[in-house]
Amino acid sequence: MQEKITFSFLGGDIRQRECASIIESEGHKVKTFGIDNILGKDITVYDKLNETFFNCDVLMLPIPYKNKKGFINIMDEKHSLALNDIEAYLKSDIKIILGKADNEFRKYVDKYGFEYFDLLQDEAFAILNAIPSAEGAIQLAMEYSDITLHGSNVLVLGFGRLGKTLARMLKGIGANVTVEARKSEDLAWVVENGYNGIHLSNLNNILSKQDFIFNTIPFLILDRNRLKQINTQTVIIDLASYPGGIDFEAARELGIKAKLELGLPGIVAPKSAARIIWEITKEVLKI
Amino acid sequence: MQEKITFSFLGGDIRQRECASIIESEGHKVKTFGIDNILGKDITVYDKLNETFFNCDVLMLPIPYKNKKGFINIMDEKHSLALNDIEAYLKSDIKIILGKADNEFRKYVDKYGFEYFDLLQDEAFAILNAIPSAEGAIQLAMEYSDITLHGSNVLVLGFGRLGKTLARMLKGIGANVTVEARKSEDLAWVVENGYNGIHLSNLNNILSKQDFIFNTIPFLILDRNRLKQINTQTVIIDLASYPGGIDFEAARELGIKAKLELGLPGIVAPKSAARIIWEITKEVLKI
Amino acid sequence: MQEKITFSFLGGDIRQRECASIIESEGHKVKTFGIDNILGKDITVYDKLNETFFNCDVLMLPIPYKNKKGFINIMDEKHSLALNDIEAYLKSDIKIILGKADNEFRKYVDKYGFEYFDLLQDEAFAILNAIPSAEGAIQLAMEYSDITLHGSNVLVLGFGRLGKTLARMLKGIGANVTVEARKSEDLAWVVENGYNGIHLSNLNNILSKQDFIFNTIPFLILDRNRLKQINTQTVIIDLASYPGGIDFEAARELGIKAKLELGLPGIVAPKSAARIIWEITKEVLKI
Amino acid sequence: MQEKITFSFLGGDIRQRECASIIESEGHKVKTFGIDNILGKDITVYDKLNETFFNCDVLMLPIPYKNKKGFINIMDEKHSLALNDIEAYLKSDIKIILGKADNEFRKYVDKYGFEYFDLLQDEAFAILNAIPSAEGAIQLAMEYSDITLHGSNVLVLGFGRLGKTLARMLKGIGANVTVEARKSEDLAWVVENGYNGIHLSNLNNILSKQDFIFNTIPFLILDRNRLKQINTQTVIIDLASYPGGIDFEAARELGIKAKLELGLPGIVAPKSAARIIWEITKEVLKI
Repeated sequence: MQEKITFSFLGGDIRQRECASIIESEGHKVKTFGIDNILGKDITVYDKLNETFFNCDVLMLPIPYKNKKGFINIMDEKHSLALNDIEAYLKSDIKIILGKADNEFRKYVDKYGFEYFDLLQDEAFAILNAIPSAEGAIQLAMEYSDITLHGSNVLVLGFGRLGKTLARMLKGIGANVTVEARKSEDLAWVVENGYNGIHLSNLNNILSKQDFIFNTIPFLILDRNRLKQINTQTVIIDLASYPGGIDFEAARELGIKAKLELGLPGIVAPKSAARIIWEITKEVLKI
Repeated sequence: MQEKITFSFLGGDIRQRECASIIESEGHKVKTFGIDNILGKDITVYDKLNETFFNCDVLMLPIPYKNKKGFINIMDEKHSLALNDIEAYLKSDIKIILGKADNEFRKYVDKYGFEYFDLLQDEAFAILNAIPSAEGAIQLAMEYSDITLHGSNVLVLGFGRLGKTLARMLKGIGANVTVEARKSEDLAWVVENGYNGIHLSNLNNILSKQDFIFNTIPFLILDRNRLKQINTQTVIIDLASYPGGIDFEAARELGIKAKLELGLPGIVAPKSAARIIWEITKEVLKI
Repeated sequence: MQEKITFSFLGGDIRQRECASIIESEGHKVKTFGIDNILGKDITVYDKLNETFFNCDVLMLPIPYKNKKGFINIMDEKHSLALNDIEAYLKSDIKIILGKADNEFRKYVDKYGFEYFDLLQDEAFAILNAIPSAEGAIQLAMEYSDITLHGSNVLVLGFGRLGKTLARMLKGIGANVTVEARKSEDLAWVVENGYNGIHLSNLNNILSKQDFIFNTIPFLILDRNRLKQINTQTVIIDLASYPGGIDFEAARELGIKAKLELGLPGIVAPKSAARIIWEITKEVLKI
Repeated sequence: MQEKITFSFLGGDIRQRECASIIESEGHKVKTFGIDNILGKDITVYDKLNETFFNCDVLMLPIPYKNKKGFINIMDEKHSLALNDIEAYLKSDIKIILGKADNEFRKYVDKYGFEYFDLLQDEAFAILNAIPSAEGAIQLAMEYSDITLHGSNVLVLGFGRLGKTLARMLKGIGANVTVEARKSEDLAWVVENGYNGIHLSNLNNILSKQDFIFNTIPFLILDRNRLKQINTQTVIIDLASYPGGIDFEAARELGIKAKLELGLPGIVAPKSAARIIWEITKEVLKI
C-alpha cells in the first residue's frame, strides 16, 4: 500500500479509537472528533466540526451510526449531533463507512450521490465479528462457572455464524459439544464437524444433562417449560440480539444462572474488533 | 421404529446393495431386481419384474436413476430397461426415492400423482456425501505421493461442501492448509477456521509452493498458464464434476501428476454412502 | 460400586468441600471438620475432633496438607492444629489421602504403619490438574487483553504437562501457537502436534512478535534482557510455581503486563478440581 | 548453513536415495555406493569402494545398517559386504550416521575412536518417524475398508509414540477414537486429549463395537479369545514390530481381516522419511 489516505472519524466507541490508531500506524492521516483519549503523530483531534475536518477521503461513522435517541453515536454524552447538522459537509466525492444505514441516511445518499458502505450489511464483517463474540462468551462462561469447559456437556442453540464459531472453539478446548438446529442441512454440517446434533423437536430430551448452554437464536427458545428441564447448576449465556431467547424472569424464579450478553466484541476485544473494521475497510477501498 | 416397511430396489450400484442390507438388518422387508450378489433372510431377489415386486411402500431407484444411454442404471449391462417399461406399475400410492429426477420422470409424477424424493437435490445428502468423497481424495493423495500430508503445503481450490470437509480433515491430519475462494464471506470463514486464505486473483503467487492441490471447482481453474507455476512433484487431484477444472493435456505435457476422480463415495466407502442414503430416506419417510 | 465407605475430611479448601459433596452424592458417608458451608443428608459436620470423627475408612487431608505455618491447612484461620495433635487417632487400619507427605508425616507412617496416598506425587493427578490450570490461564489471558486469542501469536514456554494442555487448547481456540522447549524429543512432539517449535537458544528472535506469553518453566527464563525484547502490549501469564519464571520488577519497570497465577484449579474450577481428587481417590481405593 | 560437507552413502533403501538428493540440493557434496537410480550434479556414483569414496566428512550407513544375513543393507541383492570388508577405511576422524549400532559395530568404534550416531536410539527420530507410520496406517485402513473413518469407532491399542500420533490424526479426520492403555498417567493424557480411554482390563467390553483397530503394542494383545469378540467386518492393522500383537492364524480362522504392516515410513512416504533423517543429521552435526 503506497497511497496516503485521509480518514476522518466522527464519533464511535473504543473500537473506532483503536481503529484510528491502527490506520495511523499503517501510514495514513487521521482526523477525529468525539473520540476520547486518542493520541498520535498523524492524528489530528478536532474539538469542533468544520470544513477542515470533513476535508478527507473517507468519513468513518460509528457502528451503528445512530444511538437510541437518534443522534450520532458519540462517547461523550453531552454531544447531540444529528445527521442533518453535518449535511453541509456531505459531498458527492466523500466515501462513508458506517453501520446501519437507515432511511434517513439513504435520503442524503440520494441527494448528494456519495458512496457508502454499511458494515452491518456485510456478511464477511459479521463472520469475523463472530470470533470476538465467541471468545467473549467463552470467557464469561469460564467466569460464571466453577467447572471446566473441558469434559463438560455444552449445548449451542443455533448454527449460524456465532453458533459455528462457538462450537468450533468449545470443541477445541475439549468440551463435549451438542448443537441444536432445525434445518436438515445444518444438522448434516453438525455431523460433518463431529458435534452431537439435536433437532429442536428433541431438545427437551437433553436439556437436563448440559453444564453450559449458549443461545444464539433470537426467539424465545428457552421458555419456562424448557427452563424447568434445566439443572440449576447449568450456566446459560444468551448471545441473541435483544430481547434474547430466554425467559429471564422464569430463569430467576427457577434459580438458574442466565445472562444476556450483547456487544461482546467491543467489550472484550476492542482491538480485534477494530482490526476487523479496518480489514473490511481496506477491502472496500481496495487499498 | 416399530412399523415394518417394504422397500423395492430396482437397479443401482454397490451402494444400493449395501443400503438394501442395512434396511433388512433394521427389520424391514426388501425386494431387489438387478442387484448382484445380494443375500438376506428378509430380502427377496427378483429376476424379472412383476406386480409382486412393485407391491411395496417405497421404490428405490438408482442415483442417478438413468445411465448415459437413458436406461435405468442397472449393474448388469445386458438390461436395457426404460422408465416407460415400468409405467404400468407406477401408482399414486407409491413413494419413489431416486437421484436426478428429470423431465421424463416428472411427466410420470404429474400423470400418476405419486410422491418422490430426489436425493441429488437434497442439501443434507450432498453435505454428508462430501465426507466419503473427501476421505477418498485423501486416500488417493496418500497413494500417489511419496511424502506425508502432515507438514505438507496443501491447497484446496474452492470452499463449498467438499472444500470445507477436505480442509477440515487435512488440517486434522496435520497439513498446512491454504484455501482458495472468491467470495469475501468464504474467505472470512477460511480465516475463522484457521486456514490460510487466498483470493483467486492472487492464486498464482502460491502455486509453486504446494505439495498437494485438491480442486473442487467445476471450471478450468488450473489452465496451462497456472500449471506452469506448479512444481512437477506436486500431486493434483481433481474432484470437480466432469470435465473437471484442470487442463489435463497441459499437465501431461508439463510432467505433472493430475488425476480426475469422480464418484468416490461409491468406490472407496460404499457402505458409508449406503448409510447416508438410508439416513436421508428415514428422514424423508419420517421413520 | 456397591460398598458404602466412610470418608472423614479434615480441613482443606473449597475443593475438599466440593469433593465431600460429590462423595456423598455417590452414596458414601461423609464426616467433615473445618470445612465451612457444607450441608448434606449424609454429611455429618463436626465442630470438634473426637474418636467418632476418626472412625472412618479413609481420612482426607488437605492438598498440601500443611500451611506455611506448619499447621494443617484449614479454611478457618483460627485453627492451629498440628499433625501431632491428632496422633492419638492415627491407627494402622486407617487410609490417608493427602497432598505433600513430608518427613514429619512419614514419621507417623513408620510408627503406625497406616497406608497413605500422596496426590501431589501422582502423575495422573498432575496431568488432570493441568486441565483446570490451563483453562484458568486462558480465562485470565482473555480478561487481561483487548484482543482475541484467535489469530494471535501465542508463546508457551515449556512443554511439560501444563505446556502440552495449554498449547492444545490455545490451538483449539484458533491461536497461532509457538512452543519453546529444550529437549530435541520435546521439539519433535511440538512438530508432530503442528505447533511452531523454538529452541530456548533461539527464543530471543521471536519474543517481539508475541501477543501472549504463558510461562510454565520454574526458573528465571524471562529475565530483564529477554523482557526488553517484548512488546509492552504483550500479556504475560506466569504459571510456574513460586517465585515463577519472570523478573516481575523488570517487567513493571518496562511497562509490561505480567501476572503470576498459582493454584488456578481451586480458584477457577473448584468443582472440576474436586472431581479429579475423587477420580484418583476411587482408583487408589479400587472402588 | 555455509560450509560444504561431503557425505558418502554406503547402501540403504529408497530413503537413503531421497536423503542423498535432498543433501545435494542443499549444496553439499554426495558420494554413493549401492544405491540404484540416483542422479545429480553434485552426486558421484561409485561402482566399487575405494579410498576416494571414504574420503568424506560423514559416512551414512543404512537404517538398520545390517540385513538379516549380517551384511550391510544394500538394495542390490548381489552385494554381500560386511563391516570388516570396509575396516581399512574406518578412521578416527570419520563420523558415521547409521541405524542399530550393535556389538560388532561398537567393536570398531572402540578400536578406531570415530564418532557415530545411532538414529534408532534417538527419541526425536522415533517420534518424527511415527508421523509417516501413522499416515501409512491410515492409508491402508482406508484401502482395506468400505466405510469411512469419519464417524467410525476406532480403537488404538497402546499410547506410545505411534499410538499418540495415530489417535490425533484419526480424531482430526473425524473418527470416534478410543485408546487402550495400562498406565494411569497414559489414561489421564487420553482424557486430556478428548479420546475415550479404556484400561486393558476392560478391553473385552468394547471390542465388538469397533470398526477399525490399530495395534501398536508388541505383545500378543489380540489373542484368539479377544479376536472372538471382534466383528468380522472390523479392519485390524498391526503396526507393532514383528511378530506383532495379533494371533493372525486365529484371525484367519475367524474370518477377520488383520494385516501386519512394518516399515511404513520407507514404503508410503520415503521422501518424508528421508527428510527426517536429514533433519536429525543436521542437528547431530550442528549444521
